[in-house]
Amino acid sequence: MATELPELDPIVHGQVRLAILSLLAGVASAEFTFLREKLGVTDGNLSVHLGKLEEAGYVDVDKRFVGKKPRTTYRMTDKGRTAFLGYLAQLKKLLGTNFTRRSK
Amino acid sequence: MATELPELDPIVHGQVRLAILSLLAGVASAEFTFLREKLGVTDGNLSVHLGKLEEAGYVDVDKRFVGKKPRTTYRMTDKGRTAFLGYLAQLKKLLGTNFTRRSK
Repeated sequence: MATELPELDPIVHGQVRLAILSLLAGVASAEFTFLREKLGVTDGNLSVHLGKLEEAGYVDVDKRFVGKKPRTTYRMTDKGRTAFLGYLAQLKKLLGTNFTRRSK
Repeated sequence: MATELPELDPIVHGQVRLAILSLLAGVASAEFTFLREKLGVTDGNLSVHLGKLEEAGYVDVDKRFVGKKPRTTYRMTDKGRTAFLGYLAQLKKLLGTNFTRRSK
Protein backbone atom coordinates (compact mmCIF):
# COMPACT_ATOMS: atom_id res chain seq x y z
CA MET A 1 0.00 0.00 0.00
CA ALA A 2 1.49 3.29 -1.08
CA THR A 3 1.93 6.11 1.37
CA GLU A 4 0.39 9.34 0.20
CA LEU A 5 2.87 12.06 -0.64
CA PRO A 6 1.86 15.11 1.40
CA GLU A 7 0.18 17.49 -1.03
CA LEU A 8 1.73 20.95 -1.16
CA ASP A 9 -0.75 23.56 -2.42
CA PRO A 10 0.93 24.79 -5.63
CA ILE A 11 -0.48 28.29 -5.13
CA VAL A 12 1.34 28.52 -1.80
CA HIS A 13 4.45 26.58 -2.88
CA GLY A 14 5.61 29.15 -5.45
CA GLN A 15 8.65 30.87 -3.99
CA VAL A 16 7.47 34.50 -4.29
CA ARG A 17 3.91 33.66 -3.18
CA LEU A 18 5.24 31.71 -0.23
CA ALA A 19 7.28 34.74 0.80
CA ILE A 20 4.26 37.06 0.39
CA LEU A 21 2.04 34.82 2.51
CA SER A 22 4.76 34.41 5.09
CA LEU A 23 4.98 38.18 5.44
CA LEU A 24 1.21 38.72 5.46
CA ALA A 25 0.72 36.00 8.07
CA GLY A 26 2.34 38.22 10.68
CA VAL A 27 0.65 41.55 9.98
CA ALA A 28 -2.89 42.94 9.69
CA SER A 29 -2.12 44.28 6.21
CA ALA A 30 0.81 45.44 4.11
CA GLU A 31 1.27 47.99 1.36
CA PHE A 32 2.36 46.98 -2.11
CA THR A 33 5.52 49.06 -1.76
CA PHE A 34 6.38 47.41 1.55
CA LEU A 35 6.07 43.95 0.03
CA ARG A 36 8.10 44.97 -3.00
CA GLU A 37 10.93 46.25 -0.84
CA LYS A 38 10.90 43.35 1.59
CA LEU A 39 10.98 40.83 -1.22
CA GLY A 40 13.27 42.69 -3.58
CA VAL A 41 11.17 41.78 -6.63
CA THR A 42 9.97 43.93 -9.51
CA ASP A 43 6.55 45.57 -9.63
CA GLY A 44 5.52 43.27 -12.45
CA ASN A 45 6.62 40.09 -10.73
CA LEU A 46 4.95 41.06 -7.47
CA SER A 47 1.73 42.02 -9.28
CA VAL A 48 1.52 38.71 -11.04
CA HIS A 49 1.89 36.74 -7.83
CA LEU A 50 -0.46 38.95 -5.80
CA GLY A 51 -2.96 38.53 -8.63
CA LYS A 52 -2.74 34.74 -8.35
CA LEU A 53 -3.18 34.90 -4.60
CA GLU A 54 -6.16 37.21 -5.00
CA GLU A 55 -7.68 34.93 -7.62
CA ALA A 56 -7.35 32.00 -5.21
CA GLY A 57 -9.05 34.06 -2.53
CA TYR A 58 -5.95 33.93 -0.32
CA VAL A 59 -5.44 37.70 -0.15
CA ASP A 60 -7.73 40.73 -0.30
CA VAL A 61 -6.70 43.97 -1.89
CA ASP A 62 -7.75 47.45 -0.80
CA LYS A 63 -7.10 50.36 -3.15
CA ARG A 64 -7.74 53.88 -1.96
CA PHE A 65 -6.49 57.40 -2.18
CA VAL A 66 -4.78 58.90 0.82
CA GLY A 67 -4.89 62.57 -0.01
CA LYS A 68 -3.95 62.51 -3.67
CA LYS A 69 -1.79 59.45 -3.43
CA PRO A 70 -3.07 55.99 -4.33
CA ARG A 71 -2.36 53.40 -1.68
CA THR A 72 -2.76 49.67 -2.29
CA THR A 73 -2.77 47.35 0.67
CA TYR A 74 -3.08 43.59 0.93
CA ARG A 75 -4.19 41.34 3.73
CA MET A 76 -4.39 37.61 4.14
CA THR A 77 -7.95 36.25 4.11
CA ASP A 78 -9.18 33.49 6.41
CA LYS A 79 -9.05 31.17 3.43
CA GLY A 80 -5.45 32.24 2.81
CA ARG A 81 -4.50 31.63 6.42
CA THR A 82 -6.06 28.18 6.35
CA ALA A 83 -4.19 27.39 3.13
CA PHE A 84 -0.89 28.72 4.50
CA LEU A 85 -1.16 26.80 7.78
CA GLY A 86 -2.23 23.69 5.90
CA TYR A 87 0.78 24.09 3.64
CA LEU A 88 3.14 24.38 6.62
CA ALA A 89 1.63 21.25 8.15
CA GLN A 90 2.08 19.31 4.90
CA LEU A 91 5.61 20.63 4.48
CA LYS A 92 6.43 19.55 8.00
CA LYS A 93 5.06 16.09 7.21
CA LEU A 94 7.02 15.92 3.97
CA LEU A 95 10.29 17.04 5.53
CA GLY A 96 9.84 14.94 8.65
CA THR A 97 12.73 15.30 11.06
CA ASN A 98 14.56 17.43 8.49
CA PHE A 99 12.06 20.19 9.16
CA THR A 100 13.49 21.05 12.51
CA ARG A 101 17.10 20.16 11.90
CA ARG A 102 19.67 22.86 12.49
CA SER A 103 21.08 24.53 9.43
CA LYS A 104 24.76 24.00 8.91
CA MET B 1 17.55 49.16 -0.64
CA ALA B 2 15.70 45.99 -1.46
CA THR B 3 16.04 42.94 0.73
CA GLU B 4 17.05 39.84 -1.17
CA LEU B 5 14.37 37.18 -1.39
CA PRO B 6 15.96 33.97 -0.10
CA GLU B 7 16.70 31.86 -3.17
CA LEU B 8 15.14 28.40 -3.10
CA ASP B 9 17.02 25.96 -5.35
CA PRO B 10 14.35 25.02 -7.93
CA ILE B 11 15.78 21.51 -8.25
CA VAL B 12 15.16 20.93 -4.55
CA HIS B 13 11.91 22.92 -4.34
CA GLY B 14 9.92 20.59 -6.62
CA GLN B 15 7.52 18.67 -4.40
CA VAL B 16 8.48 15.13 -5.41
CA ARG B 17 12.20 15.91 -5.48
CA LEU B 18 11.96 17.55 -2.08
CA ALA B 19 10.32 14.40 -0.73
CA ILE B 20 13.00 12.19 -2.33
CA LEU B 21 15.84 14.25 -0.87
CA SER B 22 14.14 14.36 2.49
CA LEU B 23 13.99 10.57 2.53
CA LEU B 24 17.54 10.09 1.24
CA ALA B 25 18.92 12.56 3.80
CA GLY B 26 18.20 10.08 6.57
CA VAL B 27 19.52 6.87 5.04
CA ALA B 28 22.72 5.56 3.47
CA SER B 29 20.83 4.53 0.34
CA ALA B 30 17.36 3.55 -0.78
CA GLU B 31 15.97 1.26 -3.45
CA PHE B 32 13.81 2.57 -6.25
CA THR B 33 10.90 0.43 -5.07
CA PHE B 34 11.22 1.73 -1.51
CA LEU B 35 11.08 5.33 -2.71
CA ARG B 36 8.13 4.57 -4.98
CA GLU B 37 6.16 3.04 -2.14
CA LYS B 38 7.03 5.69 0.41
CA LEU B 39 6.08 8.47 -1.97
CA GLY B 40 3.11 6.80 -3.60
CA VAL B 41 4.09 8.03 -7.06
CA THR B 42 4.23 6.18 -10.36
CA ASP B 43 7.39 4.61 -11.77
CA GLY B 44 7.45 7.19 -14.54
CA ASN B 45 7.04 10.17 -12.26
CA LEU B 46 9.70 8.93 -9.86
CA SER B 47 12.12 8.18 -12.71
CA VAL B 48 11.76 11.68 -14.12
CA HIS B 49 12.53 13.31 -10.81
CA LEU B 50 15.37 10.97 -9.90
CA GLY B 51 16.80 11.69 -13.34
CA LYS B 52 16.75 15.42 -12.66
CA LEU B 53 18.41 14.92 -9.29
CA GLU B 54 21.06 12.70 -10.86
CA GLU B 55 21.65 15.25 -13.62
CA ALA B 56 22.17 17.94 -10.98
CA GLY B 57 24.64 15.66 -9.21
CA TYR B 58 22.45 15.52 -6.10
CA VAL B 59 21.97 11.75 -6.13
CA ASP B 60 24.03 8.81 -7.32
CA VAL B 61 22.48 5.70 -8.77
CA ASP B 62 23.77 2.16 -8.44
CA LYS B 63 22.33 -0.53 -10.68
CA ARG B 64 23.29 -4.14 -10.11
CA PHE B 65 21.98 -7.64 -10.24
CA VAL B 66 21.35 -9.43 -7.00
CA GLY B 67 21.12 -12.99 -8.15
CA LYS B 68 19.03 -12.63 -11.28
CA LYS B 69 17.10 -9.63 -10.04
CA PRO B 70 18.07 -6.10 -10.98
CA ARG B 71 18.31 -3.76 -8.01
CA THR B 72 18.55 0.00 -8.37
CA THR B 73 19.57 2.03 -5.38
CA TYR B 74 20.00 5.75 -4.87
CA ARG B 75 22.02 7.74 -2.41
CA MET B 76 22.40 11.43 -1.75
CA THR B 77 25.77 12.83 -2.82
CA ASP B 78 27.74 15.38 -0.80
CA LYS B 79 26.64 17.98 -3.34
CA GLY B 80 23.03 16.92 -2.83
CA ARG B 81 23.35 17.16 0.93
CA THR B 82 24.84 20.63 0.67
CA ALA B 83 22.03 21.70 -1.65
CA PHE B 84 19.36 20.19 0.60
CA LEU B 85 20.73 21.77 3.78
CA GLY B 86 21.17 25.07 1.95
CA TYR B 87 17.57 24.85 0.80
CA LEU B 88 16.33 24.23 4.34
CA ALA B 89 18.32 27.22 5.59
CA GLN B 90 16.84 29.45 2.87
CA LEU B 91 13.36 28.12 3.50
CA LYS B 92 13.77 28.86 7.19
CA LYS B 93 14.86 32.39 6.32
CA LEU B 94 11.94 32.84 3.95
CA LEU B 95 9.35 31.52 6.39
CA GLY B 96 10.84 33.32 9.38
CA THR B 97 8.91 32.67 12.56
CA ASN B 98 6.29 30.77 10.54
CA PHE B 99 8.84 28.00 10.08
CA THR B 100 8.60 26.80 13.63
CA ARG B 101 4.98 27.70 14.33
CA ARG B 102 2.70 24.95 15.48
CA SER B 103 0.32 23.57 12.91
CA LYS B 104 -3.31 24.11 13.65
